[in-house]
Order: sequence, then C-alpha cells, then structure tokens
Amino acid sequence: MAEAATTIEGWYCLHDLRTMDWTAWKCLSSEEREAAIHEFHQLLEKWNKTQDEKQGSHAIYTVVGQKADFIMMILRPTMDELNEIENEFNKTTLADYTIKSYSYVSIVELSTYMAKGKDIETDPEIQARLKPILPDWDYICFYPMDKRRDGEDNWYMLPMEDRGKMMYSHGMIGRKYAGKVRQIITGSVGLDDWEWGVTLFAHDPLQFKKLIYEMRFDEVSARYGEFGSFFVGNRLSEEKLPSFLHV
Amino acid sequence: MAEAATTIEGWYCLHDLRTMDWTAWKCLSSEEREAAIHEFHQLLEKWNKTQDEKQGSHAIYTVVGQKADFIMMILRPTMDELNEIENEFNKTTLADYTIKSYSYVSIVELSTYMAKGKDIETDPEIQARLKPILPDWDYICFYPMDKRRDGEDNWYMLPMEDRGKMMYSHGMIGRKYAGKVRQIITGSVGLDDWEWGVTLFAHDPLQFKKLIYEMRFDEVSARYGEFGSFFVGNRLSEEKLPSFLHV
Amino acid sequence: MAEAATTIEGWYCLHDLRTMDWTAWKCLSSEEREAAIHEFHQLLEKWNKTQDEKQGSHAIYTVVGQKADFIMMILRPTMDELNEIENEFNKTTLADYTIKSYSYVSIVELSTYMAKGKDIETDPEIQARLKPILPDWDYICFYPMDKRRDGEDNWYMLPMEDRGKMMYSHGMIGRKYAGKVRQIITGSVGLDDWEWGVTLFAHDPLQFKKLIYEMRFDEVSARYGEFGSFFVGNRLSEEKLPSFLHV
Amino acid sequence: MAEAATTIEGWYCLHDLRTMDWTAWKCLSSEEREAAIHEFHQLLEKWNKTQDEKQGSHAIYTVVGQKADFIMMILRPTMDELNEIENEFNKTTLADYTIKSYSYVSIVELSTYMAKGKDIETDPEIQARLKPILPDWDYICFYPMDKRRDGEDNWYMLPMEDRGKMMYSHGMIGRKYAGKVRQIITGSVGLDDWEWGVTLFAHDPLQFKKLIYEMRFDEVSARYGEFGSFFVGNRLSEEKLPSFLHV
Amino acid sequence: MAEAATTIEGWYCLHDLRTMDWTAWKCLSSEEREAAIHEFHQLLEKWNKTQDEKQGSHAIYTVVGQKADFIMMILRPTMDELNEIENEFNKTTLADYTIKSYSYVSIVELSTYMAKGKDIETDPEIQARLKPILPDWDYICFYPMDKRRDGEDNWYMLPMEDRGKMMYSHGMIGRKYAGKVRQIITGSVGLDDWEWGVTLFAHDPLQFKKLIYEMRFDEVSARYGEFGSFFVGNRLSEEKLPSFLHV
Repeated sequence: MAEAATTIEGWYCLHDLRTMDWTAWKCLSSEEREAAIHEFHQLLEKWNKTQDEKQGSHAIYTVVGQKADFIMMILRPTMDELNEIENEFNKTTLADYTIKSYSYVSIVELSTYMAKGKDIETDPEIQARLKPILPDWDYICFYPMDKRRDGEDNWYMLPMEDRGKMMYSHGMIGRKYAGKVRQIITGSVGLDDWEWGVTLFAHDPLQFKKLIYEMRFDEVSARYGEFGSFFVGNRLSEEKLPSFLHV
Repeated sequence: MAEAATTIEGWYCLHDLRTMDWTAWKCLSSEEREAAIHEFHQLLEKWNKTQDEKQGSHAIYTVVGQKADFIMMILRPTMDELNEIENEFNKTTLADYTIKSYSYVSIVELSTYMAKGKDIETDPEIQARLKPILPDWDYICFYPMDKRRDGEDNWYMLPMEDRGKMMYSHGMIGRKYAGKVRQIITGSVGLDDWEWGVTLFAHDPLQFKKLIYEMRFDEVSARYGEFGSFFVGNRLSEEKLPSFLHV
Repeated sequence: MAEAATTIEGWYCLHDLRTMDWTAWKCLSSEEREAAIHEFHQLLEKWNKTQDEKQGSHAIYTVVGQKADFIMMILRPTMDELNEIENEFNKTTLADYTIKSYSYVSIVELSTYMAKGKDIETDPEIQARLKPILPDWDYICFYPMDKRRDGEDNWYMLPMEDRGKMMYSHGMIGRKYAGKVRQIITGSVGLDDWEWGVTLFAHDPLQFKKLIYEMRFDEVSARYGEFGSFFVGNRLSEEKLPSFLHV
Repeated sequence: MAEAATTIEGWYCLHDLRTMDWTAWKCLSSEEREAAIHEFHQLLEKWNKTQDEKQGSHAIYTVVGQKADFIMMILRPTMDELNEIENEFNKTTLADYTIKSYSYVSIVELSTYMAKGKDIETDPEIQARLKPILPDWDYICFYPMDKRRDGEDNWYMLPMEDRGKMMYSHGMIGRKYAGKVRQIITGSVGLDDWEWGVTLFAHDPLQFKKLIYEMRFDEVSARYGEFGSFFVGNRLSEEKLPSFLHV
Repeated sequence: MAEAATTIEGWYCLHDLRTMDWTAWKCLSSEEREAAIHEFHQLLEKWNKTQDEKQGSHAIYTVVGQKADFIMMILRPTMDELNEIENEFNKTTLADYTIKSYSYVSIVELSTYMAKGKDIETDPEIQARLKPILPDWDYICFYPMDKRRDGEDNWYMLPMEDRGKMMYSHGMIGRKYAGKVRQIITGSVGLDDWEWGVTLFAHDPLQFKKLIYEMRFDEVSARYGEFGSFFVGNRLSEEKLPSFLHV
C-alpha cells in the first residue's frame, strides 16, 4: 500500500448553484418581488455578520451560460451550519423561484507539505488558509475533480515521493499566477461525488483559462486529472442584486 | 474460475432519499402541515415499536446539498416489509410534498472470514451485526460501490488468497477508526445497481473523509474500488423534525 | 471472424415498469379509482384468457425502491401484440396515474447447445422453454446485460469452443439453484439497448444475490459481463392489487 | 495518416421519435381530436405528394416499449426542407400532445466501393439508393453507431486495405439477408452525435436480431462497433392511424 | 512536463441553444406574440448596433432535430457582457416560451503558430480573427471537443514538436475547404466542460460532413479527438424570424 497523504482541514464548504425561474418570478407583483428580495437581504445580513465575526464566509456570483444563474459559496465551521443555511434558504420566497442546478459539499483542505514545522493550531497563515474570508474579486471559477485510478495511470498506487514531486511542480505553476488567481482547495472524499473542489477567483477570467490550460500539460493533470463540470461567473455584489433580479 | 467469496446475510435494507418540495409545502395551511407531520409521526411510532421489538431498525438524517433533503434508512427481516413500508410512506401526505431523489435496496452482509469457527445462528456478536440496531450518532455517510472488473484490474479474477489479504489490510484501516466511525456493509448484487452499499455513522463528519481517503491509498480501493454518489447528512431526531418541516 | 452462436427464439417479451403518481391518484374520488381498477382488471382478464389458451403469458410484481412501483412482464407470439397491449394499457385510466420508468423489448432465446439432436418444432421441453408460462413465484429480479467487447476482454472475438466451455461452466452454477431460482433468458440484440434480458424468479429473494454473486467469480461474468440496472420485486397477485392501489 | 474513406451522399434524413401524452390527449373532446388527426393527415398528404413526385420519402412506425410511441423517418433533398417539416409538425395540434423522445439528423450515404466504374450522377441503381423511396415493410429497426477509436481498437488508424476487407466481409453477411432485411445507411459525422444511423426494414422483426447478432461476431462489429439505442416498431399505415390515436 | 501550448485570445463567446415551447406559445393571443417578437427585435437591434460598431458579433440559426429549435452565438469583448445579454434575453417574453437546451462558454482562440513574427496587437489579420464578425453563411455546425488523455493516447504528454506536426497536418485538411467552410475555434479550458468549441459555417451543410469525416482519419482526431454533441442548423435571418415564430 502506498503511504497515504495527510491533510489538515478547516471550514466546511457548500457550493449551491441555482437557476432562476424568470417566468414565474415575473408573475409576482413588484411588491411581492420586493418582499422576496428583502427577505433574501436579511439572510445575507446574517451571513455578513457571521463573516464579520470570522465565523464563516460566503460569496455570490452570477453564472454564465445555462448551467445556473447564480452560485452561493458558503463556508462554516460545521456541516450542521451549512445544512441549516441551505434549509433556511430553501424556505425563502426567492428559493421558490429558483431551480436547483448543482451543489457541492466539501471542506477546506491543506496538504501537510505546506505546514511543515509549523504549529497548525496557532500559525496565523495556516489558520487564515483553513478559515478563509473569500475575496471580493470579480470572477469565480468552480469545478470538482478526481485523481485518476485507471490502468497504468493510478495516482493512488504511486509512491508518496513521486506524488510529492508532481504536486510540487504543479504548485510551481500556480505560483506564477500569484496575485492574478486565488485558489481555494476543498476536499470532498466521503462528502461528495468527486475527490476535490477547486474554487478560483480572478480579476480577469482569462487567467482561469491560462492557468488551467498550462497545468493540463503538467503530468499530474495530464495523466492523473479527471475533471467535472466547470462553472464561471461574475461577482454579484449586494448592490447589483436588485438589478439582477429586476424584471 | 476464482473461488467465490461466501457471505452471511441479515436484515434487508432500504435507503430512501427524498427532496422536499418546499414551495408546495408552504402552500398548505398550517393545520394541513400539522396533520401531515402527525401522520408521519404515527408511521415513525410504528417503526419505533418494531425497533423496540428488535424486528427491524431505522434512522433518519437530513442530507447536505441538493442531492436530497433527507434519507430514511430502514432495516427489516424481509424484502416484503421494506416494500410495504415504502408504499405506506408513499401514500402519506408528507410524501406528496417530497420528490424521489435516490434509493438503494440491499441486505446486511458479513463475509465468512469474521465468523470462522462460530455458530452463525446463535453467536450473539454475529447476530447483532446481521440485525443491527442503527446507532443514534450525529452524522451519516452513504455510498454504493463496486469491485472493478477492468483489464488488469479485475477483482473477480484474483485468487481468493489475494483477495483475502487485501481485505484484511483494508479491515485494519477500518479498525483504527473504531469508536469514531461505525460501518454497516450491505450487499446488493442482484438487488440494486452496485454491488455493495456502505453506510457509515460518526460523531464528527470529518472522520468520514479521513477514513475513506486513507483507504483510497490501499490497493483494494486504489485498484479495485468503483464508487457511486456520496450522501452525507445530520441526524434528524424526532424532536428536530417539526423544526425541519417548519416553514 | 469467430463463428457466430446460433439461437432459437420463442415468444416476444415486454418488460414494462411504472411508477405510481400517488399524489394525483389520491385526488380521484374513490369511485373513479374503483372504475380505474375495474378497467385494469378487465385488461388482466384478457391477459389471463390468453395465458389459459397458451397464447402468451404475463406476470406483475411490485418493485422495491424508487426505480419503479410495479413491473408488468408480458410474453406474446408477435411483437405486434406487445405493441398493442402496451398501447391499450397506456390508454387506460390507471396509466394516467403512472409514470414510465423503464421498459425492455426482447424475445425468449435458447442457445442451440441445449437443443442438440432434438426436433425444435416438436420437442415439448424445448417448446415449453420457448413459450414459457411464467411461474407465480414470490419474487422477481430483472436486469439487462451485454457481453463485453473491450481490449483483451472481447467475447465476440473468442473462438466458439472457448465460449462454449465458459457458458457450460456458467450453466453448471445455474443448475445448483434448480428449484430455488427459475431463469428466463430473452435476447435483445437489435431490439433494445442491451444484448440480453435476464429474468429470475425465486421463492426467496436472497437466492438472487447468492446466484448472481457466485456467478460473478466465473470468468464469463468476471471478464465478459456488463450489467444494466437491477429491478427486484414482490409478486402482485390480482388479490393484492386493490390493497396496493388503496389510498 | 490513414487514407480517408470517400463517400457519396443522397437525401438528408430526419428520424423524429415522439411519445404520446395520452392523458392530455384524452382531455380533448372527440371533435378536437378529430381536427388534430385531420390536420396531421393533411400534412401526410403533402408528404405523400412529395414522395409521389420522387422529391423525398417518409415512413411512420409505432415504437415498442417506453422509448417512444412513434417514429417518423423523413428524407428530403435539402436539410432546409427537413427543418421546415420538423417545424411544421411541431406547430400542429397533434404535436402539442407528443413529447420529444429522440431525433437523428443524417444523410443517405454510399461508400464508393459499390460505385466503382459507374457514373454516379446517372447510374439508376446508385441514384435509387441515394434517393430511396422507403419500403412499406412491416417492421423498422433504427440505431445510431460509431466506429471505435480506443487504444488498440482504432478503426480510423487502420490502413484503408484492412478497412476495405473487413467491410467487404461485413457486407457478405448483409447479403445473406437480402429480401429479408432492407438496410439504409445514413452518415451523420458532423450532423449528429454518432457517425452513422442504420435503418433496417423487415417483414419479420426476428430478422433484425438474427442479422445484427451474426454481424456482432464479425471483426468490424466485434472490435470496432459502438452502438447507441435501438428502436424497433411496427408499421403505422395511414389506415391504422385513427385506431392508434383512438382513446 | 511537456511544453505547454501558448494561445492568443480574442472575444468571449456564448452559444445559447433553445427549444420553443410551441404549445404555450400558441396559447398567447397574436397581439401578445407580436409584442414578444417586437421585444426580441429590439434586442436584436441593440446587438446589430454593437456589431456595426465592431464591439461584438452574433448569429442566429434554427437547429435541425430535437436537440434545440434555435441557437444564438454571441461574441463580446468581456464575459460580463455575455452574462448581461444572457440575463436580458432570459427576462424577455420570448424566453418564457423557450426551454434551455444547451449552452457553451468560451473565448476565441488562436494558437501562436499562425502569429509568428507578427505584432498581435496591431496585425489586422490576427485582430480580425480574434474579433470575428460572424459570416451570414447559410449553415452552422457547432460541437465541443477535447484532446484525449487516455493510456497511450495522451495528447498532453506528447512533445510539443509532435503536437505541432500533427496540428499542421490537420490544418492542411482544413485549408482544402477554404471558401467552403469557415471555422472559428473558441477555447474553453476552465470556462466550460470541454476544452474547445468548434463553430463551422458553410454554404452547403454536406461540407461539414466531408470536412469532419476526412479529418477523423487524421491522427490528431483519430487518436486524440473526443467529441461532444453536434448541432447543425439553417440561418435564421431577421426576415425569416416572423415566419419561424408564426403559429
């Protein structure tokens, strides 16, 4: 048996993607729509308060194309809180006018490589990465992924040393995009259908393509990466929300 | 032909996952909702009575993410009883406000390795494992799985001895999680679309990830495991039910 | 080119699986439901008459889990009759309250191995197998399957002799279940999406699992079997029909 | 690069499969249904006129099983005409009571092998095959297919000569079914999701199974064939239409 | 690690495919339909203005078969604009009578091979290819694709030189179709589920088949191409729009 990788985990994460049922939404009176938006704003205020208290974080982006109309990415210390938030949202009036598109359950994950010689519980950089306040950058890209286990291309049968080298080289590509792309890795083995979720933030969505395409030629992606659906979107700030929902 | 593994079977098992149609549920008057909840409670009382009499067991958990809103896991001595329970639930008012998400039909299974030299019919430990009363632990994780039959990676073509060794090593990982994760294996060859269902219970959902990720580096998973969807959730005790269904 | 297997065919077969729309069904008055059940009983009487005249056969079982609520398996001398029966059922009131779940079109098939030296047209055992009256055993298991054509594991590239040997060994496992499991093989190359349908009947559903699991270690399944969805159910006799449909 | 096969094309082809919404259809008054059938008959008369003028052809069959209730196969000199016909049908009242099940866009294709030394534009046999008037045989079988490109089994990497030999041997099997099965090959590379559509007509549907099963042992199918869904049905003559649509 | 290919990007691109809900559309009064068409025309006028100002481009085609009824292909300098256009369309009355069929998010992409020694920012040919005004040719063909990463057939593990040679040979086939087929390649790594979108325009739809079939024998397609769904259609000029939407 290959030596298992060890990981450190932080906040739980829910990616919740929704499609608007615009036809039904238009059937509401503008007062009813106002009330629904107001109710959603109140929910957002609670989330903002939690974020201000560093007890969690969240981000909302519209999604380009038909896969969804918006994505809510929510981080909390426990899975129970995510479940509560999800149920609370589902019971709002706005949710009645959305269709579930996709969701992903995972937990912020760091590999122990980066934590070498540090005290995980107290090191501020590590703690900030485990419990990240999501950036307000303009664009998001989310996709789930696996490491391949297929014939000769079986990641989990490789010696730890080989895996470590490949991950290091992979990380080096990522570093070239520092300041351009911010990446949050969430692990989902045993929590959802893929092994990881990758969430990227950028000021320019072209950088998502540049980064991922460059990485695809790297052995760890070329031979061992299996990718799910890709979702990209534009930041939906609270100021833009009324205009997004205006019909 | 490789020597076939032999198995001992216990209670039949139905995993039944449902999504709430909150929009329709909200359209009911609170009296109608009360009546629906009351009707469901009566069903639960019957199930509780059966469990008290050790003629079956059940557990209900909410599910995180869009795959479902709750899961009912039900164990009974016969498949007929499962079918009756399913039909009885389907005819309740609450069921009218749910959408079927996923289900799984299987039967509690032990491999004969663990039963060596014991009298299966009378040994209390074996009987308790074959007819398990489900724990009231806080978290559940359910997923179906297959052993791979693909080119060089064909579990069913391996000699019994090799399979036995690999399963032993696999079991050793599981033992490290004793007290943290409780596992119920149900076999489903000929009963449903995968070969096994795996149901895990934990006090801390992170242990699901830790256990399954560690196992993934073990040859039996790395080379031979094929996994279906993963469903995770929080325990929905009867006390929490009204609040879960409150809109 | 490998020598093609030759087959003898009997009655055409339709497996028709349906899910009840209980919510809508409950909206009917009990008179309307009675009338719908009565209409369906009349259809069943026609089918019974056909079976009494040995011009076909049929069986109805409820299905466990969410894949369907019941399955109708219907055998007739011609495909035209199956199509007519299907359309006639689709136009009933009961059908308005069902949702189509899955169907399978095939024809009873025997390989010529078993018919060696016999006159197919007159041998009563062969004729009974080609035109089987379905047993009233308590449980059904249905699944479609293919023989694999994948790299080194290509059934259709094997010499006839090798295929014959493997099928013989496979048949030997089946014989051990004589009296416990009754099997009807229907061929569907050119008729539906898999190459065969397998329908098993048993007095004890555990025997489905035992038989199929034992076979899975046999080379013909281990290396060459590809399986579709498995559907299992309990016999729905005409006496049980009113109770099944009672809401 | 392997030498590309060259092809000759004839009429464009649309396979359009529909499921009846019998529940809604029954809600119409019999006058409304009559009007809808009348409107559809008028459409058919236009199609008949086109066929009489040898400017196209069409065939309608009911489909056995739940995949669809009927299939319309329509041939026209241009893709524009197919698109117009499809839109015209979609706007009829009958179409309001159908659900789209599957469609396939392709073009009648001959390989140049059969045309050797002939003047394609004038040879009457070739022209008749490129612009076929569909037979009124009792049964249809339609399925899409690909040639495999997978590891060692890559059709498109084979030398032309090997492909030619295999296709010749394949054709020899087909010839044995002359008079029993009539085959129309339509190419769909660049037009739809598979590379070819195969439409077979027969007087006895068992011949579909016999032909396709025999071919499956031929290397070109065994190693290189990938098959989509199979649809089989009974001829729906205009005389039978009222009875098919009678509720 | 293989040397990564470098690319130059131009306008962002949204392919948005829709199916008409003709049944609901027919329920509108002709005044309501007129108003909906008028509203859509106003949207088109805005798009035309943008195209006249060379700040984007768009094309609308009907789609043959059931996959969709029409496709809107829209190019804009930013992803934000695409998202806005999509939301604006979704809020129109016409959109209420459409069902989302498929969409694709990508960005016009050139490989740097063709740009050698040129100043990308100023070279007019390169700029015209990066910011293409879509032709008004009669037919469209759209499909997404990947380069394969499977065992021995792993494009991303090949040396740059080998990839370059194969792409050159591939390009040579494309050139033979100059004047017959116009091709726009859009990259979608990190933006959507496939790596590229290919959009072809032609005066004769047979040329799509000829080109793609010829290319399939080329190693880069034969060994390394993985293809998604193919959508073909006829140009829907603004003049034809009322007739298309007439019921």
